[in-house]
Amino acid sequence: MNDSTPANRTELSALGEFGLIKHLTQAFINEQPSTIKGIGDDAAVIDYGEKVTLVSTDLLVEGVHFDLSYMPLRHLGYKCAAVNFSDIVAMNGKPRQLFVGISVSNRFPVEALEEIYEGIRLACKRYHVDLAGGDTTSSLHGLFLSLTVTGEAEKQDVVYRNTAKENDLICVSGDLGSAYMGLLLLEREKKVYQADPAMQPDLAGYDYILERQLKPEPRTDILELLKSAGVKPTAMIDVSDGLASEILHICEDSGLGCRIYEDKIPLDAMTIAAAEEFNIQPVTAAMNGGEDYELLFTINMNDFEKVKGLEGISIIGHTTEANAGVFMASNNGPLIKIEALGWNHMRDVE
Amino acid sequence: MNDSTPANRTELSALGEFGLIKHLTQAFINEQPSTIKGIGDDAAVIDYGEKVTLVSTDLLVEGVHFDLSYMPLRHLGYKCAAVNFSDIVAMNGKPRQLFVGISVSNRFPVEALEEIYEGIRLACKRYHVDLAGGDTTSSLHGLFLSLTVTGEAEKQDVVYRNTAKENDLICVSGDLGSAYMGLLLLEREKKVYQADPAMQPDLAGYDYILERQLKPEPRTDILELLKSAGVKPTAMIDVSDGLASEILHICEDSGLGCRIYEDKIPLDAMTIAAAEEFNIQPVTAAMNGGEDYELLFTINMNDFEKVKGLEGISIIGHTTEANAGVFMASNNGPLIKIEALGWNHMRDVE
Repeated sequence: MNDSTPANRTELSALGEFGLIKHLTQAFINEQPSTIKGIGDDAAVIDYGEKVTLVSTDLLVEGVHFDLSYMPLRHLGYKCAAVNFSDIVAMNGKPRQLFVGISVSNRFPVEALEEIYEGIRLACKRYHVDLAGGDTTSSLHGLFLSLTVTGEAEKQDVVYRNTAKENDLICVSGDLGSAYMGLLLLEREKKVYQADPAMQPDLAGYDYILERQLKPEPRTDILELLKSAGVKPTAMIDVSDGLASEILHICEDSGLGCRIYEDKIPLDAMTIAAAEEFNIQPVTAAMNGGEDYELLFTINMNDFEKVKGLEGISIIGHTTEANAGVFMASNNGPLIKIEALGWNHMRDVE
Repeated sequence: MNDSTPANRTELSALGEFGLIKHLTQAFINEQPSTIKGIGDDAAVIDYGEKVTLVSTDLLVEGVHFDLSYMPLRHLGYKCAAVNFSDIVAMNGKPRQLFVGISVSNRFPVEALEEIYEGIRLACKRYHVDLAGGDTTSSLHGLFLSLTVTGEAEKQDVVYRNTAKENDLICVSGDLGSAYMGLLLLEREKKVYQADPAMQPDLAGYDYILERQLKPEPRTDILELLKSAGVKPTAMIDVSDGLASEILHICEDSGLGCRIYEDKIPLDAMTIAAAEEFNIQPVTAAMNGGEDYELLFTINMNDFEKVKGLEGISIIGHTTEANAGVFMASNNGPLIKIEALGWNHMRDVE
């Protein structure tokens, strides 16, 4: 989608700053009793009573974190919101309020911002999150998105990264690497299109991996599943930078090593097929691709029976003492040292 | 200050994303018991127990909200933080945690980010706010700052914009228009420098208005003053966009009109002198200049005796019924309709 696609083009300056915010946020309806005051004052007022407040922020930059040539603006809005919700979910909390800052150059008409906000609204609606504040300003170049989400949790329910114990089981939800294969596919079709604009993108049959890239979902359902099984993870993180990076976070922060097993890493059939097409190892997509937004967590070994039959959860290894190092047992035998090769947005730009 | 001033230049890519965040935040020391978990997990965890959580966010863009040719990076960091704290103060709350997102192009070395963070650290230290999270990413162009501050307040203490009552007294702290005169001065010296780089900036004797522009302070002291006087404002807002815009916010949101009196608007002698030099009316700087970060608030008329002698607070008018309109009685007689001509960052950029 191109940012000048909308047939009606309203210049940003036509509405003024306050008018623009009002215009963009009028379709949002607050539904959380904890939102005492949302948009329209110096600060939002949020009441979690006896509970703790979780806060997570994210900054997304055009050309660094997203590419508008294949990311429709509505999907961009949805994804930004969903990804932030996922950070709260990764603390075993419930996302409740969202704050959105958007900075755009005047190359974008109001309709482009409307599309982004519509995507955000859909994500808010799906996960029952209230838009509670934010900022819209101009920029000299490009599109910047800044999101802050607040969430709630009972104090004793919060799960950190650094609290895994030795001999815990390492689990992951869903499947991994699919979002990265979706990205490779979109980048390939972009190049084909750039070489010959008459070519139509060939995306048929790739729905699942495209959806994983364009419309990730926070795994609130996994939290519910674990809760109803009576299991509280000992440590948890969401998979934003790739399995390798996230496992290293949990192990390093908890002062542990680990063994994971390549053949236990959950991969979707389409991910495997696409990886073959692109001539890469599917496990590489899982380990270093990122953006799956699945939950990586550790559980006490005593909870094995409760977890082993749960649909959508794979046990992929176990923690060890720190000296044993962080390793993956590969399918063909040797142990491979896990190193973070995930997204590094500081190194992406020349 | 130029962004390439530091003698030692470390490329951003040298540290990597996680290393960079660790590097930039290592000098921050948490001091709030409510910061259960700060930097280093998917989300910060904040515990306000029985109290409400206040949240405010801000997005600042180089070339739109600040000009690095006369804004030293350390001042920029301090100001961004202070301005966000001011939003919490304007709710009658106490700022407690700060989340900082910075997006920079590689034209900035690590040392430039260090300067920004040092300014943020000084503001955090002065106002006892904990840095509790954030993000540092690259951008293709320029410098973007995204700040989120959380604060706490007893539920019954929170003061909104829309709760002023008819016949309340309108008060403002400190003096107005000085930050705008500081800005005009800096812009003039920039033009002089651009025309002839051999010319030295002539800023001597202008300390107060420069400091007001470069290093604003949230008025936590005014909240304490009012509290010790036993006065709770009926409505409150901070003066970020100019007195006109803020008065309109309170009146429109509260469904009221008002009369303010030009001769009651507090102006510093240096603001008046600088306004004469620039051939503008000092009241114009106060009404439409903005960035003073003083508190504009309304009080019940019965609190007049408690407030009239308080140093640093001026009573500038009173609210009326809505039909009476929003007017200023000018020094030379006629009523002038107040209209918002404040900062409008959507219209600033062509």
